[in-house]
Amino acid sequence: MTEGRPKVVVIGCGFGGLEAVRVLSRGPVDITLLDRTNHHLFQPLLYQVATAGLSAPAVSAPIRHVLRREIRRGNLTVLQGEVTGVDVAGRHVIVAGAGPGEPADAIAYDHLIVAAGTTNSYFGHPEWAVHAPGLKTLADAFTIRARMIGAFEQAERSTDPAIRARWLTFVIIGGGPTGVEMAGTMTEIAHHTLRGEFRRIDPKSTRVVLVEGADRILGTFVPELSERAHEQLSRLGAEIRTGCRVTGIDADGVTLQRRDGDTVLTERVEARTVIWAAGVAGVPLGRALAEATGATLDRGGRLVVEPDLALPGHPEIAVVGDLAAALSYGKGEPKPVPGLSPSAKQMGRAAAANLLRRLRGEPTRPFRYVDYGSLATVGRKAAVVDLGVPGLGAVRFAGLGAWLFWLFAHIYFLIGFRNRLSVMLDWAWAYFTHERAARVVAEPARETAPSGS
Amino acid sequence: MTEGRPKVVVIGCGFGGLEAVRVLSRGPVDITLLDRTNHHLFQPLLYQVATAGLSAPAVSAPIRHVLRREIRRGNLTVLQGEVTGVDVAGRHVIVAGAGPGEPADAIAYDHLIVAAGTTNSYFGHPEWAVHAPGLKTLADAFTIRARMIGAFEQAERSTDPAIRARWLTFVIIGGGPTGVEMAGTMTEIAHHTLRGEFRRIDPKSTRVVLVEGADRILGTFVPELSERAHEQLSRLGAEIRTGCRVTGIDADGVTLQRRDGDTVLTERVEARTVIWAAGVAGVPLGRALAEATGATLDRGGRLVVEPDLALPGHPEIAVVGDLAAALSYGKGEPKPVPGLSPSAKQMGRAAAANLLRRLRGEPTRPFRYVDYGSLATVGRKAAVVDLGVPGLGAVRFAGLGAWLFWLFAHIYFLIGFRNRLSVMLDWAWAYFTHERAARVVAEPARETAPSGS
Repeated sequence: MTEGRPKVVVIGCGFGGLEAVRVLSRGPVDITLLDRTNHHLFQPLLYQVATAGLSAPAVSAPIRHVLRREIRRGNLTVLQGEVTGVDVAGRHVIVAGAGPGEPADAIAYDHLIVAAGTTNSYFGHPEWAVHAPGLKTLADAFTIRARMIGAFEQAERSTDPAIRARWLTFVIIGGGPTGVEMAGTMTEIAHHTLRGEFRRIDPKSTRVVLVEGADRILGTFVPELSERAHEQLSRLGAEIRTGCRVTGIDADGVTLQRRDGDTVLTERVEARTVIWAAGVAGVPLGRALAEATGATLDRGGRLVVEPDLALPGHPEIAVVGDLAAALSYGKGEPKPVPGLSPSAKQMGRAAAANLLRRLRGEPTRPFRYVDYGSLATVGRKAAVVDLGVPGLGAVRFAGLGAWLFWLFAHIYFLIGFRNRLSVMLDWAWAYFTHERAARVVAEPARETAPSGS
Repeated sequence: MTEGRPKVVVIGCGFGGLEAVRVLSRGPVDITLLDRTNHHLFQPLLYQVATAGLSAPAVSAPIRHVLRREIRRGNLTVLQGEVTGVDVAGRHVIVAGAGPGEPADAIAYDHLIVAAGTTNSYFGHPEWAVHAPGLKTLADAFTIRARMIGAFEQAERSTDPAIRARWLTFVIIGGGPTGVEMAGTMTEIAHHTLRGEFRRIDPKSTRVVLVEGADRILGTFVPELSERAHEQLSRLGAEIRTGCRVTGIDADGVTLQRRDGDTVLTERVEARTVIWAAGVAGVPLGRALAEATGATLDRGGRLVVEPDLALPGHPEIAVVGDLAAALSYGKGEPKPVPGLSPSAKQMGRAAAANLLRRLRGEPTRPFRYVDYGSLATVGRKAAVVDLGVPGLGAVRFAGLGAWLFWLFAHIYFLIGFRNRLSVMLDWAWAYFTHERAARVVAEPARETAPSGS
């Protein structure tokens, strides 16, 4: 039934890829969606999995289930596999073999939408990765959860006060929304959730240190809201170091540097748990595409795209989401599109619409990002909200109201009714009891044979 | 406040250890509870984590949270760590170092309760373990979930019909309650949950093969209920091979042998997913204790205990739960205690009570197991129940009523109100939609530094 239709391959089922597929599935195309995993992940709540507030299935959903209606429509094939390269001249996507020893697949395309996202970037210090896990995937969240919960356990076992203090110090690097959310939640865990559960240590003696290179946290917000978030986070008990550069991370802590006029001050924070929330960069596939097409990579490893999101000279390849360095063509000068989930969704829809326009022989349209504002939560009853309300200008607020707004917005945008219900249940429970729903760490897996799955 | 009190060490926080601690915490003792993990696991529902019906936090709870009241009472210390041995003469438990390179701890005891449970046993074929994971821990459940969901993904990618059929064949070895539950659930997933979600394969063509060595499944139940379960499971679509011995397991399938009179029939089932539900054996600590105390290990690697659950000649060491080969001293001849969660709980309480009796200078009492019956579920609306109602004799039923009884009994015995609520929600949802709440597989973890957590 879909024989002979133009073949579209979509790489990645994050916000961008998912929206692109939804639009495309109504068009006269045959789509293949490729993803490394079996699930769509609701990234904005991933930090809650890391901080044991939610289970993994609460913030993710099987791709096949999310797209079951589109699959039944008959023109969408979903395949799980790792894309290892793109043969731009031959118009094939290369997917790693399904099992060990099995040959790679080559999937032909007429049009390609790349929504492969970003990975953690350590500013030229890949050796920091082992000490300071970042937060991009469910596996990352489990790693951070295991380290955080494990740190309190190790502190309780230790009899050496210095080692104990090291286990009870948590350093979060990066004062963007993820770093602020992690810092706020970890102070709450130390001060409330764990109260009365230990005998040798006092979890309240925990230090949570948030390190930011710029002179204020939440740098993408207006200074007024940064200040409010700073106040709220300090009140919760976190230590905030702004204007601080990380110069070293090892198994026992981090080294920080701060400039005070002409003086360079160095600080060493002894800590066994360090979390990286400071930077991301485009996935390696971006570099491969840049080399194959002559496209430009920006400093963040993102592909610079045309106004219609296509790669220069390659109208058959569009890049959307965090991997795209895109501009928004609204009123006035084109503005850079921020790396947020709403922008990824909008780019996914726009690229799919442009693809369908091209099939109809119509000209493509430049991408225009509609900014509905941004939110960040700091902790219990603390958040900041910055909304652009058409005709009303900016609406900014912080505190309890902002926190409730944040809660409901996140439940609203979660995928799946069951997930909404279950997150609401867990949050209501957490609100009244201070207990967190997912404070469970699986033991390391036994060694098993490579099974290809 | 608890200085000078007798020191009790409890190893393991399964059903037996948890109940022992609860009883002991009211006594004039100072307790240290050791567990490898940070959670108490509700084993009877672990197969639901493996089959993507429930998330891990739904069937487990942080030990510290479960025992928070006991901890606040001031005489309980909970420590996470792997017990590597017991110095019986010196009355010390050896716990592996908290972090890499850190020294092992020696924890002194006056009394020891060992509730360390069992591990998978492959009947002298440890090489089968990599191909046929068993189901004892959360990590095991994640492994099985990843393989099961991954198998359908690989089948959809494959273009070779033979390989595809291999991915769509699931073999479950062992026809006890776990094997039957897994087989029933997997047929339901293939026939209902995945319907319409694939384009190249028909999940309904999945084969689920349940292999049992004895001549009937659910051998601990009366033959009549075995037969009912057999019928129910066949109707759901599973293939049942009774009287079949496994003689080989490799990456591509299993080899079975069956006797038909004097003829030995050999069957090869090509399958990429094999699950081991056939046997368990006492953990290695059991063997170490046997060697140190002269106690006897039975065929299943369990420690043969005295009527009061102590090791012979070592009244200061009691063994409870699956690691104990205990007898029940009721009316008539002593009967072996089955390896079930109710018996582990009863043993935990009995051993703790005997310990407190000994402290008061009273004689200990022989253990008596009270059998409230057994349940096993087969699948949607299918289960078998065998209850011993005092004064009424055996009450046996199967089908929808048994299934509802099974559901409510399991929710009732789950620990924690929130877990009950969340499992009820997930089950109600699954009942009406055939969807499963946790069909999400985390990608393999990145390599990270050993962090000791």
